[in-house]
Amino acid sequence: MKIAVAQLNYHIGNFEGNVSKMLNAVETAKAQGADIICFGELATCGYPPRDFLEFDDFINRTKEAVDELAKATKDIAIVVGSPSTNPVPEGKDLYNSAYFLADGKIQQLQHKALLPTYDVFDEYRYFEPAKEFNVVEYKGKKIALTICEDIWDLPSGKDGAGVDNPLYTVCPLEKLSKHNPDFVLNLSASPFSFKHAEERLKVLKDNVKRFGLPMFYVNHVGAQTELIFDGGSVVISPNGNIHEELPYFEECTKVYDLDTVIAGKENREQTKNKMTLIHDALVTGVRDYFGKLGFKKAILGLSGGIDSAVTAVIAARALGADNVRCVLMPSQFSSDHSVNDARQLAQNLGCQYDIIPIQSVYDSYMKSLEPHFFGLDFNVTEENLQARIRGMFVMAMSNKFGNILLNTSNKSEMAVGYGTLYGDMCGGLSVIGDVYKTEVFELAKYMNKDGEVIPVNTITKPPSAELRPNQKDSDSLPDYDILDEILFQYIEKRQGPKEIIAMGFDEKLVRRVLRLVNINEFKRHQTAPVLRVSSKCFGMGRRMPIVGKYLS
Amino acid sequence: MKIAVAQLNYHIGNFEGNVSKMLNAVETAKAQGADIICFGELATCGYPPRDFLEFDDFINRTKEAVDELAKATKDIAIVVGSPSTNPVPEGKDLYNSAYFLADGKIQQLQHKALLPTYDVFDEYRYFEPAKEFNVVEYKGKKIALTICEDIWDLPSGKDGAGVDNPLYTVCPLEKLSKHNPDFVLNLSASPFSFKHAEERLKVLKDNVKRFGLPMFYVNHVGAQTELIFDGGSVVISPNGNIHEELPYFEECTKVYDLDTVIAGKENREQTKNKMTLIHDALVTGVRDYFGKLGFKKAILGLSGGIDSAVTAVIAARALGADNVRCVLMPSQFSSDHSVNDARQLAQNLGCQYDIIPIQSVYDSYMKSLEPHFFGLDFNVTEENLQARIRGMFVMAMSNKFGNILLNTSNKSEMAVGYGTLYGDMCGGLSVIGDVYKTEVFELAKYMNKDGEVIPVNTITKPPSAELRPNQKDSDSLPDYDILDEILFQYIEKRQGPKEIIAMGFDEKLVRRVLRLVNINEFKRHQTAPVLRVSSKCFGMGRRMPIVGKYLS
Repeated sequence: MKIAVAQLNYHIGNFEGNVSKMLNAVETAKAQGADIICFGELATCGYPPRDFLEFDDFINRTKEAVDELAKATKDIAIVVGSPSTNPVPEGKDLYNSAYFLADGKIQQLQHKALLPTYDVFDEYRYFEPAKEFNVVEYKGKKIALTICEDIWDLPSGKDGAGVDNPLYTVCPLEKLSKHNPDFVLNLSASPFSFKHAEERLKVLKDNVKRFGLPMFYVNHVGAQTELIFDGGSVVISPNGNIHEELPYFEECTKVYDLDTVIAGKENREQTKNKMTLIHDALVTGVRDYFGKLGFKKAILGLSGGIDSAVTAVIAARALGADNVRCVLMPSQFSSDHSVNDARQLAQNLGCQYDIIPIQSVYDSYMKSLEPHFFGLDFNVTEENLQARIRGMFVMAMSNKFGNILLNTSNKSEMAVGYGTLYGDMCGGLSVIGDVYKTEVFELAKYMNKDGEVIPVNTITKPPSAELRPNQKDSDSLPDYDILDEILFQYIEKRQGPKEIIAMGFDEKLVRRVLRLVNINEFKRHQTAPVLRVSSKCFGMGRRMPIVGKYLS
Repeated sequence: MKIAVAQLNYHIGNFEGNVSKMLNAVETAKAQGADIICFGELATCGYPPRDFLEFDDFINRTKEAVDELAKATKDIAIVVGSPSTNPVPEGKDLYNSAYFLADGKIQQLQHKALLPTYDVFDEYRYFEPAKEFNVVEYKGKKIALTICEDIWDLPSGKDGAGVDNPLYTVCPLEKLSKHNPDFVLNLSASPFSFKHAEERLKVLKDNVKRFGLPMFYVNHVGAQTELIFDGGSVVISPNGNIHEELPYFEECTKVYDLDTVIAGKENREQTKNKMTLIHDALVTGVRDYFGKLGFKKAILGLSGGIDSAVTAVIAARALGADNVRCVLMPSQFSSDHSVNDARQLAQNLGCQYDIIPIQSVYDSYMKSLEPHFFGLDFNVTEENLQARIRGMFVMAMSNKFGNILLNTSNKSEMAVGYGTLYGDMCGGLSVIGDVYKTEVFELAKYMNKDGEVIPVNTITKPPSAELRPNQKDSDSLPDYDILDEILFQYIEKRQGPKEIIAMGFDEKLVRRVLRLVNINEFKRHQTAPVLRVSSKCFGMGRRMPIVGKYLS
């Protein structure tokens, strides 16, 4: 039996586009003699469709898409993820289902049992969990259909595989294995984080260790606003060998012979380099945000600093240098090298750049505000004013020329609120908002690995917002090495003050940092969506009260 | 037996504050001879604690709070909502529990079974549903403990009570009723919408009809950022009579004699007027946002239009006129009456106001942009620029004087994107973002019912953004009567284009409006939290993809 794995870039709600993509893959697979082709989770509508699932009209469109795919199953079976309607009134109205299509019609459905409802996932908001588990019989083989999370919560066993504190009380593959399946298909939509590919292989190996079955894990690729899917679909042999790991960040349809997979003679993994993965993920994120919204051109403010430099490189690689416009907006506090570094970067990339000094508008504001501010000292108000004038200039350019503004804030400053709302926090998409400052430096060096793209001075000079004379980030923030480690423990690891202090960090500093993170929740509430590359990104995956007293 | 209902205004994560409030209520109840006092759902930590529940440190604080309350149970039993730890590794780590405290210690727990995971609710993100149901025996009575949603999903029965399409497959009170309880306590945290009080009484009557038990429904009061709790706790007799409905938007602890409640001789409801409820909810929302964040003073831009006028009235009523500062920012396109109406309103309210014309800053921007915009026509860029200059002026005043900016956008314009990001969409809290434009007019008239507060001209003149000569909202939008009805069907009722067109609306208009709602998701993503007064408010309760093709 030959099985095709189709790793595609779907688009939420673009039913025509998604179906036509899948039909193309069906042709490719048939040409290579495939008996079955398997697509990803909720492939008809894209993932995550979110509250569109509450619209009957939307659900009807998914059913039409399934019907259209069913028509294409003359000499090949199709396995595709799509919502289905719960036939009984009790429970949620929908299931998250794997449809088995053959001979022109829907033959069988297997619903998803484990519904991730944590971090960025909201599946129990929409779906009823499966309570029945049956294999599909096709051409003499028994197939176990599982959907994404269904294989991720394997309870811990004697063999050391699985997790010690499972989130769920059911193990779908345990139930399915009682029917003696020949192989497992897993339809996934599993969002990228830089450790995800590693975790995925561990989960698959754990399942193989427990059940001894060949598995075909079929992932999405491409980005849907903040969520990036890296592909990396996996075919794994019953002996635990990785028969093949499909490319990251690329569409791909490949056909496998089941017997060869069962033989388990291949064992090859892709290399996993953190900076390569983050870089490629961000490029994909920017490219798909623009592509799926029908935009071509980006704009951003270049300060001469490292955050805007890294963002510009990603934008140019995602959209082409011709489609990225940079705006340099020096003030009286800008150092010469800032303008020079920014200009050099734009020239290195081959991007158009404009220089718009902010001094005259700033003076004009101060003159209008004079009667109200009379006698009061320069403070954060005037610093914010500069950041906001810059925000307005780039937004004016954005409006006039139709370029979408990219936000250049990093994760460390988003965490502690070291950014100006309606100023440098403007933008339609936050490109590096899930990348800590220390990682931004690593990323800049990675970008320069084959020659200088980002001027070295941008990487080596001390970070500064340049909003008052001789300002340095280190005037008001601890060293980024220390700050980022505290933030990581609090944000990614959900450690409280006691635990972090016990690790050896200064108590006053820990309490100050945690307080800053909490009291700046109101700012992050108004931020652009952030491309997610870590296991805990600001935005939909981290839901914090604004009005809260705890640690603030 | 005497039962005290304590309807309190909790504060998320403010453990000391919440416990001390509850201990005061315990004293009040004891002084009136109560045998039991009942608090709300998750009262120790406030509702909704959101992802703070993922921090062990936070959970430990809730346990300390419960222990402290237990010490106060010398001559009275306490029923309080708080998280508890799931003792088995399988399933989520927490339960959402009702603690029964007596004789100085924790006597018994009943967990919540129905975990709302829709709209603004995320409970399955954190909690495992209860699988066991036991009554509490105390002083010769059997008590059924239920938590909020546990009584909201009564399956439809022969008596016509309940719902036809229940969300859940279990009915907790059906299970509990097998133990023959004497009465039901329901610990709630049920957020306000203007129809909520009515729905609540219907649900309680349905339960009484089915189980024939007296019920004490104990709600929160006060606001937690966007969610407002209206109180309105209910004591209902087994004959279906409303023994008492507690006040809306007020803290209140009252003691009831069980036998008197069972006798069922009282039957009194509060009057429910939509505009009174919305008005009082918004005043509560603003007051608690400021109070719980430790702020006193607000600022807002007054345009002379109805949205900012209504917002100013609510702010003055919530915080006191002395604490509200208004900024009038006329441009060359502002009509005389706009400035006069705005000034008149500020004078009527007794608020400080400043006038800052925007023309000179606008000219300064245009001069700086001239080399880049040379030869291009005036368009939305210049309109947005005016709105953004105003946003920057109020933010500068906000920064300098420590007043928090209130956003004045209404729900209709938020829906169709008729607002400028980083301009009139600025602000820490959206006060009327869940109030359609047609309702804003009603609210203005309601505010004037005892004499003119809002100048009549503000209410009667045609709405205009005044960003170009003689501009009217009706130039680019349909009549608000029609627009709001289409929006209501799409947003609140989740009707698709076909259904709305079938209601008799113009097809082209419907498709245009739905498209506008969808393509402006990116703007709403960056909006301030919106005070929720309807059943479907923008923000945490409506989760839509930004990169989506469906209807856009």
